[in-house]
Amino acid sequence: MQAPVPHLVRSTLESFQEAVCSTLEGLEPEARFRGVELARPGGGMSRPKVLEGGRVIERAAVNFTHTHGAKLPPAATERRPELAGAVYEAISVSLIVHPRNPFAPTTHANFRFFRADEAWWFGGGFDLTPYYGFDEDCVHWHRTARAACEPFGGDVHTRFKRWCDEYFFLEHRDEPRGIGGVFFDDLDEPAHAEALWRALIDAFLPAYLPILARRHRTPYGERERDWQLIRRGRYVEFNLLFDRGTLFGLQAGGRVESILGSLPPEVRWRYDHQPEPGSPEERLHTRYLVPADWAAGAPE
Amino acid sequence: MQAPVPHLVRSTLESFQEAVCSTLEGLEPEARFRGVELARPGGGMSRPKVLEGGRVIERAAVNFTHTHGAKLPPAATERRPELAGAVYEAISVSLIVHPRNPFAPTTHANFRFFRADEAWWFGGGFDLTPYYGFDEDCVHWHRTARAACEPFGGDVHTRFKRWCDEYFFLEHRDEPRGIGGVFFDDLDEPAHAEALWRALIDAFLPAYLPILARRHRTPYGERERDWQLIRRGRYVEFNLLFDRGTLFGLQAGGRVESILGSLPPEVRWRYDHQPEPGSPEERLHTRYLVPADWAAGAPE
Repeated sequence: MQAPVPHLVRSTLESFQEAVCSTLEGLEPEARFRGVELARPGGGMSRPKVLEGGRVIERAAVNFTHTHGAKLPPAATERRPELAGAVYEAISVSLIVHPRNPFAPTTHANFRFFRADEAWWFGGGFDLTPYYGFDEDCVHWHRTARAACEPFGGDVHTRFKRWCDEYFFLEHRDEPRGIGGVFFDDLDEPAHAEALWRALIDAFLPAYLPILARRHRTPYGERERDWQLIRRGRYVEFNLLFDRGTLFGLQAGGRVESILGSLPPEVRWRYDHQPEPGSPEERLHTRYLVPADWAAGAPE
Repeated sequence: MQAPVPHLVRSTLESFQEAVCSTLEGLEPEARFRGVELARPGGGMSRPKVLEGGRVIERAAVNFTHTHGAKLPPAATERRPELAGAVYEAISVSLIVHPRNPFAPTTHANFRFFRADEAWWFGGGFDLTPYYGFDEDCVHWHRTARAACEPFGGDVHTRFKRWCDEYFFLEHRDEPRGIGGVFFDDLDEPAHAEALWRALIDAFLPAYLPILARRHRTPYGERERDWQLIRRGRYVEFNLLFDRGTLFGLQAGGRVESILGSLPPEVRWRYDHQPEPGSPEERLHTRYLVPADWAAGAPE
């Protein structure tokens, strides 16, 4: 196998950005993504695309970035501290979808490629944050991810799922952000890193769209909206307190509106809010915000 | 002068908590503060008081805490690194008021006393975050603070105001959180530290109440509400990204609901939002979110 070819990696990610945007626009009678190509002060470019105020999508941000940097930030690699400070190139898509309907889950995905000196590696993943849980959605989500990983070895999905559960965790609340998915970094096995990464890119829309499609028309009222807005507060807490991508971007002087495009459009905090015992809101905590092997089937 | 007497410091802070809560309740036909005394796992107690959903106050959190700790956290003192790890005692009130009316500003105040080994010191301050600016409010706010500082030396107010401007600053947006006020730490001059600290405690309600009283009935519509909710997003960003008290509390395993009681009840983020040129919203940025010597009078 050869090393990955940056312009092919770039075109894969640009196509992915296009595919996500046009697919989501297909659900919208009027709302469209907007965004122009921007030069990055340090070198390279970004193309942030944002859709707001749609009938199905309350906010989606799908950002493509191609960076040429003089000094690799330490946060960019966990396993290769010796490369911190090296000249590097990074290509990535980062996206978030906040549907309007509280029964439709929020999703986040990120796919990235780094090159520094002679080294290169892939990273990324996708995860799902429901406000109300549905067994069939969890099973579908994790099975789609597992199917994409399967050709690359029996333990890949298990490792990437655990990595996701560990990363998307709100330590201060001792609570997972959602039901997880897959997450990985420093993927550089010459034999299959790129193919596995591409398989996961290809799996994202098939994992998310069927769930969005079957939930976005569910009738709801103020109670469900209120719960969604309160839970979105957890999303804000995670992104501003823990997310390495967000914190690194802000500290490195990235474009604030692009980086914080991941925040939900509307959020509530309520003091010491506790869901009613036996309610679907409580069930989110007791059944769904608990790491489980959903790909094997719904737990008892 | 003698060293401060902890039980007198405590009763001052408990009276202050009571005064703030009963004064704010006086503006509310029905809403009341709730909250019970809680034991702190590490030693000591806290009495968080929260009022939500009032006619004037959308959320106010007024927390009294008395901590006995085995190891002073490094974040607790800037000037005395040698005390990090010492046995300590801390007594504090921390409060935030988010009024419902967008013409009424949010305020935050904190007053604290620390004792470790033979050392003791006071810290605290108050700051104001308007959504719409009014010259007379800015002048009144800063003059009240200056008057409290004046008996203690000509430069005290200047120093404490600058400290506040520097602390309540959103680096990633290159933007102050509000119009400032006073902020100080490590105050230990035996001759007047306690008296100055008490003078500032006594100045808080006279600084804030007249402003709240003259703004909370101003008619407003969806436009002003929307602007308020967007600006509240900045407040969340500051508290979760920068505020040492919040971050320390969460890292130290404090009670999450008390620590995050400072967050606004309802918040919006909108992508790349820019106020209309010439609007009162733009004027907040161009005239009020600019440090100025308001105590000397409104600038040209």
